[in-house]
Amino acid sequence: MPTLQPSRPLVVIAIGGNSLIKDAHHMSVLDQYRAAGETCAHIAPLVCRGYRIVITHGNGPQVGFILLRSELAKGQLHQVPLESCVADTQGAIGYQIAQALGNACRKLQVEVEIASVITQSLVDRDDPAFSDPAKPIGPFYTEAEAVRHRDGDGWTLKEDAGRGWRRVVPSPRAVEIIEEKVIRDLLARDVVVIALGGGGIPVVREEDGTLSGISAVIDKDQASSLLARQLRADQLLISTGVHHVMLDYGTPQERPVTSMTLSEAKAHLAAGQFPAGSMGPKIQAAIEFIEAGGKHVIITRPEDIELAVDGEAGTHIHRDADLEDL
Amino acid sequence: MPTLQPSRPLVVIAIGGNSLIKDAHHMSVLDQYRAAGETCAHIAPLVCRGYRIVITHGNGPQVGFILLRSELAKGQLHQVPLESCVADTQGAIGYQIAQALGNACRKLQVEVEIASVITQSLVDRDDPAFSDPAKPIGPFYTEAEAVRHRDGDGWTLKEDAGRGWRRVVPSPRAVEIIEEKVIRDLLARDVVVIALGGGGIPVVREEDGTLSGISAVIDKDQASSLLARQLRADQLLISTGVHHVMLDYGTPQERPVTSMTLSEAKAHLAAGQFPAGSMGPKIQAAIEFIEAGGKHVIITRPEDIELAVDGEAGTHIHRDADLEDL
Repeated sequence: MPTLQPSRPLVVIAIGGNSLIKDAHHMSVLDQYRAAGETCAHIAPLVCRGYRIVITHGNGPQVGFILLRSELAKGQLHQVPLESCVADTQGAIGYQIAQALGNACRKLQVEVEIASVITQSLVDRDDPAFSDPAKPIGPFYTEAEAVRHRDGDGWTLKEDAGRGWRRVVPSPRAVEIIEEKVIRDLLARDVVVIALGGGGIPVVREEDGTLSGISAVIDKDQASSLLARQLRADQLLISTGVHHVMLDYGTPQERPVTSMTLSEAKAHLAAGQFPAGSMGPKIQAAIEFIEAGGKHVIITRPEDIELAVDGEAGTHIHRDADLEDL
Repeated sequence: MPTLQPSRPLVVIAIGGNSLIKDAHHMSVLDQYRAAGETCAHIAPLVCRGYRIVITHGNGPQVGFILLRSELAKGQLHQVPLESCVADTQGAIGYQIAQALGNACRKLQVEVEIASVITQSLVDRDDPAFSDPAKPIGPFYTEAEAVRHRDGDGWTLKEDAGRGWRRVVPSPRAVEIIEEKVIRDLLARDVVVIALGGGGIPVVREEDGTLSGISAVIDKDQASSLLARQLRADQLLISTGVHHVMLDYGTPQERPVTSMTLSEAKAHLAAGQFPAGSMGPKIQAAIEFIEAGGKHVIITRPEDIELAVDGEAGTHIHRDADLEDL
C-alpha cells in the first residue's frame, strides 16, 4: 500500500445517479452535463483546499435508459447484457464528471489531474439478491405500462416510493473492488479519481481465477462504503437529494438529524426509520464504514458538499466515542 | 515528466474496432468479449516479458450501434450526442479489454494491475473534417437502405471498401490528449493502461479554457500516433485484419511488405498505394510517429502481435537511417 500523506484528508464522495439527471422533465444528456457541472462546482473547492478525493456515482436511471434502448432496437441489433450497460454508463458519466470537475477547477485556477477509471466489483454468485431483484433502474411507468412490460417482456417491476413503477434488477453486494490498487496508485500521484460508477461492473470469479461479468446493478452506496474502508478514507460523503436525514419522515413529528452516533443510526435503522429503496441503503453503508474503522460519514445535498465537509450542513454520523468527545 | 525506465520498452498497441467484432454474423456482445479475449491472449505474453504497454482501440462499429439504438428509441427516450456515444464505447470496450487482459495474464500466472482510463482528445473546432464527414460507423446498409436513411434521417452515407454503405461522421484530428499525464502516472506505477478508446472523446477548448464535447469520431490510429509520440514510446503497433501491408493490392503484382523506411512509406502513400478508408490512415499515423522522432512502427494481425514485436511477422516501418544500419 502506498504511504498516504496524513495531512491531506481523503474523502470518498458518492454522487447519486438521480441527482445527475435532475427530474423527469430534464433528463437529456445536455441536462445531465449541467447537473454534473453543478455538483462538480461544489467539489472543486475541496480540490483547491488540498483534499484527496475519490468520486463514485450511481447510474440507476442511466443504465435503465441504455437497457431500454437495447430492447427497443432488438429487431435490428444485438442486445446489450446488463453488465455491459453498466460499463457504458461508467464511460458516459465518468466522462461528464471528469470534464465538469476539470472545468470547475480551471475556473478556480487550480491545475489538477483527473482520471475516470473503469471499475469492476466482485460479487458472490450465490448472493441471495440474484433471486430477489430489488434495484430500480430506468424510467418510471404507469401501472398499466408496468403490467404490459411484466407480461410482454418478462420484466420484474416494483412501485418506487410513490413515484411510479420501475423495472428492478438483482443488486448483489460488492465484496472486492478489482481496481482498488489502481485507485491507490492514482491517489499516490495526486490524481483526483472517479471510479466505481454504478457501484462497479458486477463480475464473478470463476474456478480458474478468471473474472466474468454477471447481470446485475450493484448499490453504489454499499460499494462506495467498501471502497472507502479499503482506502482507509477519512470521510465517506453521500450526496443525495435531501438537506438532512429525517426521522419520522412524513409524519407531524418529522425532524432533521444533524448528527448521530453509530449506535443511534443502527437503532433508527432497526426501528424502520429509513425506507429500503432510498435512505436505508445509505444509512447501512454509513454503518458498515464506521463499524470497519471509519470515523465520519456525511449525508448531504450536492449544493452543500463544501459546507458539510466543514460540519456546517448535512447529517453527520460518527463513532460513538468520537461524538461523546465533542 | 516521470522518469521512464529505459530498460523496459514502451509499446503503444492500437487495436482495430472491427477486429473486436469479428464479422457481420458474430457481433453480439458475447462475441465481442471473445474477440477481445483472443487479442489479449496475444498481448499478455508481452506483459510477462516486462514490456510497458498502453492499449488503445477503435470503436467504429460499436459507436454506430449505440447511435443507432439512440435513434431507434427517440420516440421514448432522449437522444444521445455522438461524443457521449464515444464515451459509452470507452466504458464497454475498456471493460472488455481490461477483463480479458487480466484473465489472460492470470492464466500465465502474472500479477499485473490494469486500468482503463476515460480519455478526452482535444480537436480544433475549425478542423476541415467537420464539413466533410468521412469516418464510417455502425452497420452496413444496402444502397436502398442508404438512400432511405439519407433522405429520411438526414444522414451522410458512403460506400465502404466494397462491403456496403455506412453512415459517415466528421473525423477531426486529435491535437492534444487531455489525460496524457494520467497515463504517464499509471505507467510510472507499472500499470498496463487502456486509453484513448475510439481515438478519444472529441472535445474543444472554449475561450475561458474549459472543455466541451463536440459531435465527431476521431481516427484511433491518428490519435494513437499522437499519444505514442507524446509518451516517447519505443514502438507503435497497429493491430488490424491483415498479415502485412500490401503493395499493388488487388492486382497481379500484389505483394506483401515486410519492412520499409519512412521515405518508402511516404512515397507509396503519395502514389496512392493505400486506400483512404483502410490502410491509408495507418500508414499516415506511422509516418507521423517516425517523423516526430519515433523509431519503429509495426502493422500486424492480432494473432501475430508477439511474433511481430520480435520482428518475425507483420510489416515494419523504420527511420531511414535505422534501416540502412540493419
